[in-house]
Amino acid sequence: MIKPRTVRGFRDYLPDTMMAREHLMEVARRVYRSYGFSPIDTPALEYTEILLGKGSDETDKQMFQFSDRDYAMRFDLTVPLARFAAQHIGVLGTPFKRYHIAPVWRGERPQRGRYREFMQCDFDTIGTDANSSDIETLMVIHDLFEALGFEKFTIRVNHRQLLNGLLDKLGILEKSTAVLRALDKLPKIGHDKVVAEMRDAEIDEVSAQKVLQFADLQGSPDEILRQVEGFVAGSERGEQGIANLRELFATIKIAGLDESRVALDVSIARGLDYYTGTIYETFLDDLPNIGSVCSGGRYDNLAELYTKEQLPGVGASLGLDRLLAAMEELGLLKSSSTPAQVLITMFDASRLGEYMALSRRLRAAGIATEVYPQPKKILKQFQYAERKGFGYAIVAGGDEFSAGEWTVKNLGSRNQEQVDDAELIAYLQAALK
Amino acid sequence: MIKPRTVRGFRDYLPDTMMAREHLMEVARRVYRSYGFSPIDTPALEYTEILLGKGSDETDKQMFQFSDRDYAMRFDLTVPLARFAAQHIGVLGTPFKRYHIAPVWRGERPQRGRYREFMQCDFDTIGTDANSSDIETLMVIHDLFEALGFEKFTIRVNHRQLLNGLLDKLGILEKSTAVLRALDKLPKIGHDKVVAEMRDAEIDEVSAQKVLQFADLQGSPDEILRQVEGFVAGSERGEQGIANLRELFATIKIAGLDESRVALDVSIARGLDYYTGTIYETFLDDLPNIGSVCSGGRYDNLAELYTKEQLPGVGASLGLDRLLAAMEELGLLKSSSTPAQVLITMFDASRLGEYMALSRRLRAAGIATEVYPQPKKILKQFQYAERKGFGYAIVAGGDEFSAGEWTVKNLGSRNQEQVDDAELIAYLQAALK
Repeated sequence: MIKPRTVRGFRDYLPDTMMAREHLMEVARRVYRSYGFSPIDTPALEYTEILLGKGSDETDKQMFQFSDRDYAMRFDLTVPLARFAAQHIGVLGTPFKRYHIAPVWRGERPQRGRYREFMQCDFDTIGTDANSSDIETLMVIHDLFEALGFEKFTIRVNHRQLLNGLLDKLGILEKSTAVLRALDKLPKIGHDKVVAEMRDAEIDEVSAQKVLQFADLQGSPDEILRQVEGFVAGSERGEQGIANLRELFATIKIAGLDESRVALDVSIARGLDYYTGTIYETFLDDLPNIGSVCSGGRYDNLAELYTKEQLPGVGASLGLDRLLAAMEELGLLKSSSTPAQVLITMFDASRLGEYMALSRRLRAAGIATEVYPQPKKILKQFQYAERKGFGYAIVAGGDEFSAGEWTVKNLGSRNQEQVDDAELIAYLQAALK
Repeated sequence: MIKPRTVRGFRDYLPDTMMAREHLMEVARRVYRSYGFSPIDTPALEYTEILLGKGSDETDKQMFQFSDRDYAMRFDLTVPLARFAAQHIGVLGTPFKRYHIAPVWRGERPQRGRYREFMQCDFDTIGTDANSSDIETLMVIHDLFEALGFEKFTIRVNHRQLLNGLLDKLGILEKSTAVLRALDKLPKIGHDKVVAEMRDAEIDEVSAQKVLQFADLQGSPDEILRQVEGFVAGSERGEQGIANLRELFATIKIAGLDESRVALDVSIARGLDYYTGTIYETFLDDLPNIGSVCSGGRYDNLAELYTKEQLPGVGASLGLDRLLAAMEELGLLKSSSTPAQVLITMFDASRLGEYMALSRRLRAAGIATEVYPQPKKILKQFQYAERKGFGYAIVAGGDEFSAGEWTVKNLGSRNQEQVDDAELIAYLQAALK
């Protein structure tokens, strides 16, 4: 006998978790589509040279490779998008808006809470540098979290060219990677150590202090942008960043988004070395410590390793598994493990056709309905229904058939009522609302 | 520069194909759920010993393996279900009804039209031997094809125990694998060669002729079953098979299924060596040569290699990629490559907020809407809209804003109309119906 088990670092999804996961994916699909993003799919495996091409040291190390193959498992959906865009952009045309919901794999050593397989849920607009696509990206994130049922969330926005404008003015633009690396540690190590780290990177004390003052800016988007003007005045890139963000905040106001959900945070340093324009991070107000559950930004040239065509783009990625963990912690997940709402219990096996006919009537009315397969003891059938999380059970034996009415049991309250056959669908539709 | 290309035997799905594929998966999910099947997911990789455990020589050969790993990529969703059921059945309880829509991989040498990665779309009921689950399986297949928009399809049903009953009576039950193998070739090689092949397997001429007479039975299910009675009379297994099929045909009649879509075909031999009870194959009447697009059956003991618990089951698998190819051939696929219905063209970049506000109003009314990101020439924007397959374009420049009305262009007929802002949503909803 072979012991049934998953490979280390991998996991099964049982119905309750999988139903929640499918719900998230469905909502994401619906919102992405409502903006005209189209689905694509790419293979699980890509040539190693393609995957390595765009990767950093860290992703290379984490890549799920096989020593006997010249291909490996994709570790994200961005590299496959770059390869896909380079290969097909002639057919697709621009602007090209795609979403991609698919698993990715990491070869890192498995540890508690870290898995080697997880689902990504990305959307991107390729082939345009229009700021309206940046603004739309923000709107998609906003609508996505609203559609998922969250009321309290904050999308923090930043723009790479604000800090670059400052560094430009200070004459240390070439140090931007070192500055970002130091700034990223600010919440953990504090001002003094960040200054020390910048000093090690040969950034003078005055510049370092200026960068820290900049990163400390607080207030409404308008207030912050007015202060940023002083920091970057005269730098074309800095002024472009300010103009883009001004347009972003003005547009979402006219478009009617809840402005309190969008904040300008010039201290965001993460991702700034990868992105070249607007940057997004999304936090749940009730669980800020879980980190960003939807992040993204604008990049200049997605597919430079695979084509000479310049393909700027902007997009974001929903962290499905992190969000699922958050929703579990916030008690937002249903405990049901069945998508059906009604269980028709079975009393009399000789009436199978009638049970099936009833189930078809309910399904045709949009009520997902299961028929218990065998005439087991009614208590056993109720236990099954309660464990799975059905809302209602219909009891139908000889008495019910001859009276032309059904016993409908509410499995939450355990109350039951006699319902006339002609009333049954209306009764259940009202009850299930 | 790295040449952008997929690994040999793998392919990309561009938006038009992927939208059709997503539609099929969504319909399958909806139908499976309406019967109370729950989603699960399992890892792409499983330990090789688990995958090899249940495989035949053929699947072993086709398995996508790596010489440096003790795990490999799953080649179907049945072995992972067996492993999953053995591992979790205590938590899940029985009956357990699951669906699983996920990619699988085959290591076979790539050739034209054969891919190494494809999507499977399975549903199964585990842990009950009730014939009602067999009947429900048939009903699910029926509803699935109806929901997919097919009117003319035939589900061919057979039962392993009919032929077994005959072999039982003939005293050659132990030759059943050889009989099935020979019968499977009947359409290709004809009666005489099938008899010759059975002779090689030491099956006497009289028995071989009897088997062929049996496989030739034609008529309505009732007529065939009456004739089968003569062939298997006295064999308990044969009579059980007849009783199960009688109940199946009686039940679907009462339940109101279109009986003309369900045929009894005792010549089906494929899958009979794997399945132990009812068997299903589904053919599109307009494209019978493409083969079965949804097949399945009942099995006695799913997880015998991984647990001592007896887990009988019944289920079927939708051949997603084959069905997609068939729908393309039948002209049933839409040619659109965008899920959005309306494109708002952009004339005046300074009115971005108003364009975005309009798009939000349309989305809130359930109309998927894209905003063109830049004020390019209107002809270019129309070309974009036509190429992608949008239904309608809204033109909104200075004149339209001041008049409070929009120019709505039907991209199919190329007619355009002025529509008052207050009427716009009702107008589009009616037009898109």
